[in-house]
Amino acid sequence: MAKILVLHGPNLNLLGLREREVYGDGSLERINENLTQLGEKFHITMVFAQSNVEGEIINLLHDEGRTSDCVILNPAAYTHYSIAIRDAVKAIQTPVIEVHLSNIYAREEFRHHSVIAPVAAGQVSGFGHFGYEMAFFAALNMIKRR
Amino acid sequence: MAKILVLHGPNLNLLGLREREVYGDGSLERINENLTQLGEKFHITMVFAQSNVEGEIINLLHDEGRTSDCVILNPAAYTHYSIAIRDAVKAIQTPVIEVHLSNIYAREEFRHHSVIAPVAAGQVSGFGHFGYEMAFFAALNMIKRR
Amino acid sequence: MAKILVLHGPNLNLLGLREREVYGDGSLERINENLTQLGEKFHITMVFAQSNVEGEIINLLHDEGRTSDCVILNPAAYTHYSIAIRDAVKAIQTPVIEVHLSNIYAREEFRHHSVIAPVAAGQVSGFGHFGYEMAFFAALNMIKRR
Amino acid sequence: MAKILVLHGPNLNLLGLREREVYGDGSLERINENLTQLGEKFHITMVFAQSNVEGEIINLLHDEGRTSDCVILNPAAYTHYSIAIRDAVKAIQTPVIEVHLSNIYAREEFRHHSVIAPVAAGQVSGFGHFGYEMAFFAALNMIKRR
Amino acid sequence: MAKILVLHGPNLNLLGLREREVYGDGSLERINENLTQLGEKFHITMVFAQSNVEGEIINLLHDEGRTSDCVILNPAAYTHYSIAIRDAVKAIQTPVIEVHLSNIYAREEFRHHSVIAPVAAGQVSGFGHFGYEMAFFAALNMIKRR
Amino acid sequence: MAKILVLHGPNLNLLGLREREVYGDGSLERINENLTQLGEKFHITMVFAQSNVEGEIINLLHDEGRTSDCVILNPAAYTHYSIAIRDAVKAIQTPVIEVHLSNIYAREEFRHHSVIAPVAAGQVSGFGHFGYEMAFFAALNMIKRR
Amino acid sequence: MAKILVLHGPNLNLLGLREREVYGDGSLERINENLTQLGEKFHITMVFAQSNVEGEIINLLHDEGRTSDCVILNPAAYTHYSIAIRDAVKAIQTPVIEVHLSNIYAREEFRHHSVIAPVAAGQVSGFGHFGYEMAFFAALNMIKRR
Amino acid sequence: MAKILVLHGPNLNLLGLREREVYGDGSLERINENLTQLGEKFHITMVFAQSNVEGEIINLLHDEGRTSDCVILNPAAYTHYSIAIRDAVKAIQTPVIEVHLSNIYAREEFRHHSVIAPVAAGQVSGFGHFGYEMAFFAALNMIKRR
Amino acid sequence: MAKILVLHGPNLNLLGLREREVYGDGSLERINENLTQLGEKFHITMVFAQSNVEGEIINLLHDEGRTSDCVILNPAAYTHYSIAIRDAVKAIQTPVIEVHLSNIYAREEFRHHSVIAPVAAGQVSGFGHFGYEMAFFAALNMIKRR
Amino acid sequence: MAKILVLHGPNLNLLGLREREVYGDGSLERINENLTQLGEKFHITMVFAQSNVEGEIINLLHDEGRTSDCVILNPAAYTHYSIAIRDAVKAIQTPVIEVHLSNIYAREEFRHHSVIAPVAAGQVSGFGHFGYEMAFFAALNMIKRR
Amino acid sequence: MAKILVLHGPNLNLLGLREREVYGDGSLERINENLTQLGEKFHITMVFAQSNVEGEIINLLHDEGRTSDCVILNPAAYTHYSIAIRDAVKAIQTPVIEVHLSNIYAREEFRHHSVIAPVAAGQVSGFGHFGYEMAFFAALNMIKRR
Amino acid sequence: MAKILVLHGPNLNLLGLREREVYGDGSLERINENLTQLGEKFHITMVFAQSNVEGEIINLLHDEGRTSDCVILNPAAYTHYSIAIRDAVKAIQTPVIEVHLSNIYAREEFRHHSVIAPVAAGQVSGFGHFGYEMAFFAALNMIKRR
Repeated sequence: MAKILVLHGPNLNLLGLREREVYGDGSLERINENLTQLGEKFHITMVFAQSNVEGEIINLLHDEGRTSDCVILNPAAYTHYSIAIRDAVKAIQTPVIEVHLSNIYAREEFRHHSVIAPVAAGQVSGFGHFGYEMAFFAALNMIKRR
Repeated sequence: MAKILVLHGPNLNLLGLREREVYGDGSLERINENLTQLGEKFHITMVFAQSNVEGEIINLLHDEGRTSDCVILNPAAYTHYSIAIRDAVKAIQTPVIEVHLSNIYAREEFRHHSVIAPVAAGQVSGFGHFGYEMAFFAALNMIKRR
Repeated sequence: MAKILVLHGPNLNLLGLREREVYGDGSLERINENLTQLGEKFHITMVFAQSNVEGEIINLLHDEGRTSDCVILNPAAYTHYSIAIRDAVKAIQTPVIEVHLSNIYAREEFRHHSVIAPVAAGQVSGFGHFGYEMAFFAALNMIKRR
Repeated sequence: MAKILVLHGPNLNLLGLREREVYGDGSLERINENLTQLGEKFHITMVFAQSNVEGEIINLLHDEGRTSDCVILNPAAYTHYSIAIRDAVKAIQTPVIEVHLSNIYAREEFRHHSVIAPVAAGQVSGFGHFGYEMAFFAALNMIKRR
Repeated sequence: MAKILVLHGPNLNLLGLREREVYGDGSLERINENLTQLGEKFHITMVFAQSNVEGEIINLLHDEGRTSDCVILNPAAYTHYSIAIRDAVKAIQTPVIEVHLSNIYAREEFRHHSVIAPVAAGQVSGFGHFGYEMAFFAALNMIKRR
Repeated sequence: MAKILVLHGPNLNLLGLREREVYGDGSLERINENLTQLGEKFHITMVFAQSNVEGEIINLLHDEGRTSDCVILNPAAYTHYSIAIRDAVKAIQTPVIEVHLSNIYAREEFRHHSVIAPVAAGQVSGFGHFGYEMAFFAALNMIKRR
Repeated sequence: MAKILVLHGPNLNLLGLREREVYGDGSLERINENLTQLGEKFHITMVFAQSNVEGEIINLLHDEGRTSDCVILNPAAYTHYSIAIRDAVKAIQTPVIEVHLSNIYAREEFRHHSVIAPVAAGQVSGFGHFGYEMAFFAALNMIKRR
Repeated sequence: MAKILVLHGPNLNLLGLREREVYGDGSLERINENLTQLGEKFHITMVFAQSNVEGEIINLLHDEGRTSDCVILNPAAYTHYSIAIRDAVKAIQTPVIEVHLSNIYAREEFRHHSVIAPVAAGQVSGFGHFGYEMAFFAALNMIKRR
Repeated sequence: MAKILVLHGPNLNLLGLREREVYGDGSLERINENLTQLGEKFHITMVFAQSNVEGEIINLLHDEGRTSDCVILNPAAYTHYSIAIRDAVKAIQTPVIEVHLSNIYAREEFRHHSVIAPVAAGQVSGFGHFGYEMAFFAALNMIKRR
Repeated sequence: MAKILVLHGPNLNLLGLREREVYGDGSLERINENLTQLGEKFHITMVFAQSNVEGEIINLLHDEGRTSDCVILNPAAYTHYSIAIRDAVKAIQTPVIEVHLSNIYAREEFRHHSVIAPVAAGQVSGFGHFGYEMAFFAALNMIKRR
Repeated sequence: MAKILVLHGPNLNLLGLREREVYGDGSLERINENLTQLGEKFHITMVFAQSNVEGEIINLLHDEGRTSDCVILNPAAYTHYSIAIRDAVKAIQTPVIEVHLSNIYAREEFRHHSVIAPVAAGQVSGFGHFGYEMAFFAALNMIKRR
Repeated sequence: MAKILVLHGPNLNLLGLREREVYGDGSLERINENLTQLGEKFHITMVFAQSNVEGEIINLLHDEGRTSDCVILNPAAYTHYSIAIRDAVKAIQTPVIEVHLSNIYAREEFRHHSVIAPVAAGQVSGFGHFGYEMAFFAALNMIKRR
């Protein structure tokens, strides 16, 4: 059975509690539950993780990501400077889909640049919680095409 | 019945004939056919257009876009400098989803910046033809949530 | 009888329908009517045109602009990147007055720079519809001084 | 009776004596006389001042500008760096119209940027002495619309 | 009883041992003791923490910072690039006072820019150990004004 | 028989009427006639086109350029920003020779950069009308070497 | 008896009348009265001055600042470009504490850079009127430590 | 007996498994074994560590690095932005030799800049696994010269 | 009899009291006395002035400078940003020689750029007090050559 | 009889031995022979030189270039930084045609800028060995037009 | 027998006489002698050269470098701008090891960038005279691995 | 007897023949003769040299400059990029006076920056031939002050 790792970056544990006008009011749990249901429906093992620590995200990519068929990654603030996560994405060969809840191109200038994007398989930005669902279907499509 | 305008920018008429390693081999027709089927399935009127002329794309946004419920726009090369298309996207109030076949962030530096993105509802980049399908479902989700 | 060409750039056809807090609520027709009356009062032939297509604006400058005594040009979004329109302004020798409805220097950074201004006779920015009237009198003054 | 302050910045006292190919040959007195006549015709109290001292221009904006209905300001060289004048323009709430004799966008690169413009009501640039007349009518229009 | 979290960033555990000409000779303990005494005098619960790990600082802001009335944060080297800490500061709604022992504006160019400052309540820089005391009184003043 | 498309960009229709000190006094017709004679001499079918519209230039590259053996293109002002024309040049596989009448490197700074050059076969700049002749021989040489 | 010069820069004379959402509603007098009381309590002679003229601020630093034990300086708009005030701060050897009412790092980009800060003893930014009190105690602490 | 700490940064645990054309095929173990043998031969205690967590690298520099005679550090991706590691290198006074397997100057632009290098004793870049050996001899030479 | 105006900019009144390692220990009086003697010897009327106020320097250039045969100007800190003084230098037609005591190119980056230099007759930098003497002889040479 | 100097810059002596995929396989001798034949055919004295030394290229321009009717110069790597060669090109008044074998605009970023081009008569880039032939005909055309 | 060329760039002939705090006190002779001994020990023919002339360094790379098995090159000041030497390094196919006595990354900003590094086999920087020894062993290792 | 080396950089051998509106009409010989006479008058041995080769200028600084009491250097085009000459100026400890005939700050942007100036004793720019005389007296003054 195919496996997808869903990896949430820093401050996403506060989702629903924090700046709701930017990130929506649903919690991270709700996103994960929704994806769990989709996983069940399409027979995909879903693994979830969240960390505020850059190096732990790298560890998770090494440990869980390398044995997954696809990774859905929301690098949050690390998007903009973590070359270390970028290198981890490139090192494991699993395709990684970059997801952003908000439209990062409509926010502060420093959020317009992603160091992860050049090594990601693709990017989904600005669709709120639904963006994870879109990423799930993109992952499914990649897995099927193999 | 809800309506979605699918608008393809410059050089996309050559899709399948041109730089296949970047853009895939399917033609624009195949993309449109696939979306037509999805439209039928979900009871959405689909309108398709392609133009190489910046001002015609603006005209299409004014004429067809304003009466649509959502626009799926691949601005192609105009992504990077057409402030005129950006202004058109902002002027009509229909939500516009920006789609790119290739991962624009993995290509030449000058393709990393989109002048359209800050006024788009969201962006999908790097998933090839499947990106249009993702955009379709995002549009559907937006229409349903109204 | 002297002739003035009034040339409106992209998206200005939506004036009054679009972002009223930035551009005011009067339509383009109202601006043209007002100028027509001024033209009658001061015995000036007024010619009006609007286009969303960069190359058509160039054609209009070549065809109508060269035989006019003055051009009042609102290049809208093309202000910021159309070197082709700049070259057309320079090529015809008619003086061209650049008009902007909004104060472009109080908006997004990328709107602070005009590629047209260095070859224009002068620039009027930020006075809303009244800016066209100011440009009319400036044109009149230029025509008289010949 | 409405009041308009006309405030001339540094080196404008030499007008007509200095670089005539750039600034025209009329003196500052002639500009002020012309505006005085317009003021009489339209029943506006006109107040005139010129200073080479940045801080005195700020004092004049505070003392005379705050009690005026509109300010016509030619900040001359201070246009390009005086954040202090910018702050004064913003602090008094009277609308300020920025005027430049020459087309500042057709001169040296460092003259293309105005730190005053983003807080001005509007800008008139490149029409020589006539620019003050245009600003007068813009001021009149603003006063009438209140 | 009001609570203040005092959070010290990377390498501050070596204070007094390291580059004394820049950071002074007192140890971190001495700073904390001084603040403890001030807390007792003004009936404020003081909580202290230090970490070299960016993600742990975020965890501390989430766990301790959200239930505090004010945070005194010395982000040290993370000041200049940790958008993740910036997001954490913004996500918790407790006001955060940024403190720097040295005058960061008198040091290397790359230390002149703080990514935290735009979301901090205020910044104190260059007063050595006394800066924490100043921050304490600023925190006290904020708590009183509620 | 081999075919060469000669494609002239915006404002070149005014050649001989416009800024003669920069572009010389011969008209576009004279250039085309000269090339026609060369074509006859060397048994090459010559096709000529001029447009001020960016998208029409793209259409011409698609329609005429793809079936030619070589394209001689003077993109004029579009040289400096038309990524859309660049993409068209790359999409059709015909070699494209970029020609400029004036030495673009001896003019305004913004004319020093060509977005077309990186995908052109070669560039000829600064030789006036004779540059087209040089391009013709370069095209001939390419055709022969196949 | 020790002496502290409190020097307020341009437009601060309008405090309480101007942009209250940025600068608070108290007047400059209230700030000075508060500092006068602190001065009396701690036996410090307080000297107050305000000027809109850059050169007068320099004169005050030379005349009053050199004989003071500490200067509390709010350079306001001059913060961002007055190298002349910076040189004056460095020339007199009295320590100078830079104070800003608003958090300059949370405002327009051009306010993020202080040319004074590298030669100041320290900087306090963003605490409103209370920032002067913090600066007073920092000054006191410096005087005591001599 | 002298001690050398060999500290490997993020993603180096995947060495030999990852991008072999860039980093070679030997594993990290092989590098460490080779250095262990050199240590035995020259009577140097060798200590090895690897971490993906920026803060743990700082902890290791504090705990192990300060009691070593030399540190051989491959900061990997952190090379390019970790001012926190830079500060740790500077804070401990042990000389630190920076090693890179690949020639970082022949890779992506963002890898050309090292924030660690200015505080390192020296840098070895581009010699693959042999670079560690070179660093070992440089460390030996430094230890001998004390 | 020819006249030379010697005009000293901000903070130069503190010469000899301030940062002696940069500016030398002689006072401004000593420089002026030396030039007075040279003036007597070569039959030149010498006029001296110093001001910390930018606008007063402009007034002095207008009032004294325009009737002089040459101006020796040390703009001090205003060198780097006073476009107003630059315009004054250009407006009066007297040749102006720019003098700097220190080598401004060996100091902070922001001192490397002079906005005055492009309109000055020439520049002398880095020779301490003797630089004024060099400027005197250059002025003499210019006067003689007329 | 007219004379043309053909001057080859650094590393061109290795032509045919070096990076053939960039520069083609013919040797410099073959290029010179080809030009010699053209010279004979059109009665032009051809002079050839190659040097790796910047100053020798300048000497050759002074000694041979000044007495030639045209210079064909391939400055190779010096193209991008030798202001000294640029000055030599400008100093001798002979027209200089800049030739590049490869399309310098399709290579590394630092090769996109030529400091020679602004003072050259024209530039030919990207046509391999044939570019010299094109330059020869351009030179011939210039000589004829005198 | 394998051959190594050791090539010293400009001003290195003054080594030991010049800025000893940066470059150490040993002379260039001592470095060469040390390498000669190593060459004898490992049966490598060592060739030494020094030149202040950029073009002579190129000549030496062409003449001696191409027939060597490895080049040890200290380009000194030419490191930062000599694209001509860079091209020579790339043209000869011998691997080139770049050596710097001082840590160029701890010096002036303009020394942080090497135009040679991207085409060098590797770089050794900051180890003083010992750096040449390190380069020798790296060369030896490369020769052995062939 | 004291010695001064006068060293002229590239293209100065053409002085009087080249661009006279920039450099004046006198030849280099006339400058040298004038300085010879001054040398005789003040009992200074004058040594003159000119070279177009960067490395030869370095050799001259090493050989003649090190035994001189002062060097008068006009680096001409090398001013703007020759870090090698800069290093030579710093390496020899003789003070070096930088002279420019033209006002380099009133010419092209790329001539505004001198890499030599930060290590020169002082700079004289814009006084034509007389600038050498000024430099002579500055050298004399330095020699006397020893």
